[in-house]
Amino acid sequence: MSLKLSILGCHSATPRSFAYPTSQFLEINGDYFLIDCGEGTQLQLRKHRIKFSKIKHIFISHLHGDHFFGLIGLISTFSLLSRDKELHIYAPKGIKKIIEIQLSLTDSWLSYPLKFHELQKKESELIFEDEKVTVHTIPLKHRIYTNGFLFREKPKERKINIEEVKKYPEIETCDYHNLKKGKDFIFLNGDVLENKVVTFDPPKPLSYAFCSDTAYNPDMIPQIKDIDLLYHESTFLEDRAELAKTTKHSTALQAAKIAKMARVKTLLLGHYSSRYKDEDLFLKEAKTIFEEVQLSHEGDVISIDNA
Amino acid sequence: MSLKLSILGCHSATPRSFAYPTSQFLEINGDYFLIDCGEGTQLQLRKHRIKFSKIKHIFISHLHGDHFFGLIGLISTFSLLSRDKELHIYAPKGIKKIIEIQLSLTDSWLSYPLKFHELQKKESELIFEDEKVTVHTIPLKHRIYTNGFLFREKPKERKINIEEVKKYPEIETCDYHNLKKGKDFIFLNGDVLENKVVTFDPPKPLSYAFCSDTAYNPDMIPQIKDIDLLYHESTFLEDRAELAKTTKHSTALQAAKIAKMARVKTLLLGHYSSRYKDEDLFLKEAKTIFEEVQLSHEGDVISIDNA
Repeated sequence: MSLKLSILGCHSATPRSFAYPTSQFLEINGDYFLIDCGEGTQLQLRKHRIKFSKIKHIFISHLHGDHFFGLIGLISTFSLLSRDKELHIYAPKGIKKIIEIQLSLTDSWLSYPLKFHELQKKESELIFEDEKVTVHTIPLKHRIYTNGFLFREKPKERKINIEEVKKYPEIETCDYHNLKKGKDFIFLNGDVLENKVVTFDPPKPLSYAFCSDTAYNPDMIPQIKDIDLLYHESTFLEDRAELAKTTKHSTALQAAKIAKMARVKTLLLGHYSSRYKDEDLFLKEAKTIFEEVQLSHEGDVISIDNA
Repeated sequence: MSLKLSILGCHSATPRSFAYPTSQFLEINGDYFLIDCGEGTQLQLRKHRIKFSKIKHIFISHLHGDHFFGLIGLISTFSLLSRDKELHIYAPKGIKKIIEIQLSLTDSWLSYPLKFHELQKKESELIFEDEKVTVHTIPLKHRIYTNGFLFREKPKERKINIEEVKKYPEIETCDYHNLKKGKDFIFLNGDVLENKVVTFDPPKPLSYAFCSDTAYNPDMIPQIKDIDLLYHESTFLEDRAELAKTTKHSTALQAAKIAKMARVKTLLLGHYSSRYKDEDLFLKEAKTIFEEVQLSHEGDVISIDNA
């Protein structure tokens, strides 16, 4: 059980030198996911030495430029590099048209299969699942249709307590399979040995929620309850609470409120408006009500290990 | 008469850290032009402190991603910054559809008028003219429809030679207007005073040609004869001359051949393939037949002053 989040960009739309728009690379339980893909993401991936070949699934929160204008460049570059593996794009309806028209008018064909999973549901839905991880959408409140994403490790099997299990000669190695799955052991005479006597709890599965862009939206709380890490946008501070409301963004304090109510372990802030010169003000404001908060900066790597 | 060319990016499509695709910012005779707009151009403009408000005309050579994927981001950012001045885009047919579909599907409206000048002619044409500068297309040979651009200062007026002109009391200040335009002075008795006796030649107008991407193409020579500065792509070295031919790019030697035949003052190389680690090899190869050559690097500013 491990989670490693690399911040490739964490600023809002208006560009400044060295202020990249949103993109994150997530490694969770051995799976890899790219989340949002603002302009310049392919350069950021190179800079932070993330191998292009690891990217098989790209999640786009919404169709505002600072969250997806880097996608067409990345898709094209993959083809220039003769990629052959499938690439899956999970994004709001419209993305297929945007990408395909550009490929067509630039006379480009791809060296690999590109699969679109267009999203348009207003309720949370399971959009990815394999043997290690699930990904659900988190409906957000923004100016256009927007989803956050909830990444959850699947529970691992229980671990055999070798010392204890050897006390029962009736239990053979071939029984371990069922014990790992949490089943009790039944002796020939019908007696029951409780599973937990001869197994250890597996490491707790980790979870990460990406929530950007969104207005203050307590509706998301049941879904992100008790998760390990929450990235919640904080475009503004409370001094611009009205502007946050109009533009359907959040303040650092509002992000902290959500984190507090959902009892998340750690809150990560980002998507800072360029009007603020001192990002520590975001940290300070959030900390007034929630202690476990940190700022995201380009190049940061947040690791959680639960082995 | 002055020309200042800022290199914002000069590499071919495959990205490396800190290797930006094609974009140049040209100041010529007081006019400003952005030439090509690869991904990340808006960040490069910020980094090199070029004011967004100076950009009124953007020229796109062809619809390959490394020459225009930064355009939609720049167009959107101008709007976020509440621009109100018109923006003109000169680019191959198709660009309007690409940009408009993205604006429409991202639910964006622009704060300023966006005017498209779609190009599709195979012959050179005048695409921009004001009182200071003309811009003509230079038809290039690439895998898709591609234009180079020839920027020429318009000739300035002749300068009055005050010392000489005062020797002729018949010439009044109101006659200077015609003298500056190169007209001879006619005395009342019908005698003719040759213009050049009382005027100086104006500074020679400067000229710049941008030629990328293109296969070796001597057809362009008559158009770029004797110009001051030629940017000619050199994606490959002669060791990959076959690959250059197949992909319709040029080698450094071929760029030098064009420069030599056209007798340009200075040749500027760029659009280097990422397979070459040592860019000095491009310079070395071109110099075998043409001395006045230099490499473009991101951040370079090439100035020519003819005052």
